[in-house]
Amino acid sequence: MLIVGENISVTSQIVGDAIRNRDAGPIIKMASEQKEAGAHYVDVNIGPATKNGEETIQWVVKTIQDAVDVPLALDTKNTSAIEAGLQVHKGTAMINSVTGDQDKLDILMPMAKKYNAKIVGIALSEKGVPPDVDSRIEIVMNIVSSAMANDVPLSDIYLDPIVLPVAVLQQQVHNCIEALKAFKQLKELMGLPDDPKTIVGLSNVSQSSPPELKSLLNRTYLTILTACGLDSAICDPLDRELMNAVKTFDILTNRILYAHSYLDK
Amino acid sequence: MLIVGENISVTSQIVGDAIRNRDAGPIIKMASEQKEAGAHYVDVNIGPATKNGEETIQWVVKTIQDAVDVPLALDTKNTSAIEAGLQVHKGTAMINSVTGDQDKLDILMPMAKKYNAKIVGIALSEKGVPPDVDSRIEIVMNIVSSAMANDVPLSDIYLDPIVLPVAVLQQQVHNCIEALKAFKQLKELMGLPDDPKTIVGLSNVSQSSPPELKSLLNRTYLTILTACGLDSAICDPLDRELMNAVKTFDILTNRILYAHSYLDK
Repeated sequence: MLIVGENISVTSQIVGDAIRNRDAGPIIKMASEQKEAGAHYVDVNIGPATKNGEETIQWVVKTIQDAVDVPLALDTKNTSAIEAGLQVHKGTAMINSVTGDQDKLDILMPMAKKYNAKIVGIALSEKGVPPDVDSRIEIVMNIVSSAMANDVPLSDIYLDPIVLPVAVLQQQVHNCIEALKAFKQLKELMGLPDDPKTIVGLSNVSQSSPPELKSLLNRTYLTILTACGLDSAICDPLDRELMNAVKTFDILTNRILYAHSYLDK
Repeated sequence: MLIVGENISVTSQIVGDAIRNRDAGPIIKMASEQKEAGAHYVDVNIGPATKNGEETIQWVVKTIQDAVDVPLALDTKNTSAIEAGLQVHKGTAMINSVTGDQDKLDILMPMAKKYNAKIVGIALSEKGVPPDVDSRIEIVMNIVSSAMANDVPLSDIYLDPIVLPVAVLQQQVHNCIEALKAFKQLKELMGLPDDPKTIVGLSNVSQSSPPELKSLLNRTYLTILTACGLDSAICDPLDRELMNAVKTFDILTNRILYAHSYLDK
């Protein structure tokens, strides 16, 4: 399970303030503690970033990578900020939240190829959240086709079936599981040379639920999705119970060797 | 998810003493609290019961059902004790731990038919624990064939892929998941008129693991297995975190309606 730490996001006031004030401390601390807790990637969500997006993301990327040896997932709707981030990023970056809209794909896929970056392709278009499983499949098929056309390896594509809040759109939470299972059949369905990978933005599922339910909802959903073949999750690696569930999954499916002390590793 | 409460077993000293001394109190208490906690069935494991098995099981069945309105799963290798239990049981009983051995099936399937009881058919034979997934499938195919031959409805058959302790036989824990998935294909594979159901003896997975790991292993395994189609579990309904995971699964897969208070129901 590839863990992408979600905590560096401008939706958090601490992060928003730190970025605005170019205050490196909080950003480095959050990147460092997420890596320490088991994150393989650290997500950097700078929001729409319509003003100075390029300079902002370069500051964040350099600030983190000068202090912490971790690759980043770059998350903003500003595509030229994405490219600016990739220019200064060390190692294999990930481009987050790439929708199935053709105009976006025509910019971002060549960029992924040029900078050898992974892509998170989400089952979302400018029309909004797809109402059912089939429309999710349709959107990601377009993303996969674009990857093929741009010679981006399918093993670098992470398809996201779109997690929605169970408190608001319960049926969609079940649809997401079914969409994930369908994504796992794409290789056969489209006659692909390789399996694209899968990913979710996990914490969405517990948005609008009371704080005492969030971790339980998140970790149970992650276990269900992983049992259905999920490869990666954008989530909070500081949630100890979540990470324990991930380790326990790996133990029970024989991916890592059991020891009484497996939680401590 | 059909929950079968596992706590009334002679392997527990309290239960062993209570049965020996015909002390109804502890038995009624355990049945009652398991039902209260969400068990749909209460398992009654009286052990080999080679001496007075018939009288013993009839006492336990009547003692529980005179006080608590709950159906029971009867668990003993003594087949005539099983029949004695069925004779006094009210409602639809379950016969637990029916192995794939033909001589046992020839006795117990007609009994299930006669008393309209459900059967837990386990992927085990006198040869011991099957080493791989295929041998599990072979055994349960024999159980299913026996059910068909004896006109027992397949919807009353619960196939158990055999859970083993992850601390001792880690590969087998993964095999059990794969066997479960295969059991879900039996209808197609054998051209059956109906899907047989599936069940596990859950707590085996954490046997020999330290106490602080047991609940985590149990509930994570249950979530994985349920995501793979499991219909029923023999488990400890007094484990609140386990039952919360079951409820959360049902919420996330849209089986029960979400409310912020869903854990309290």
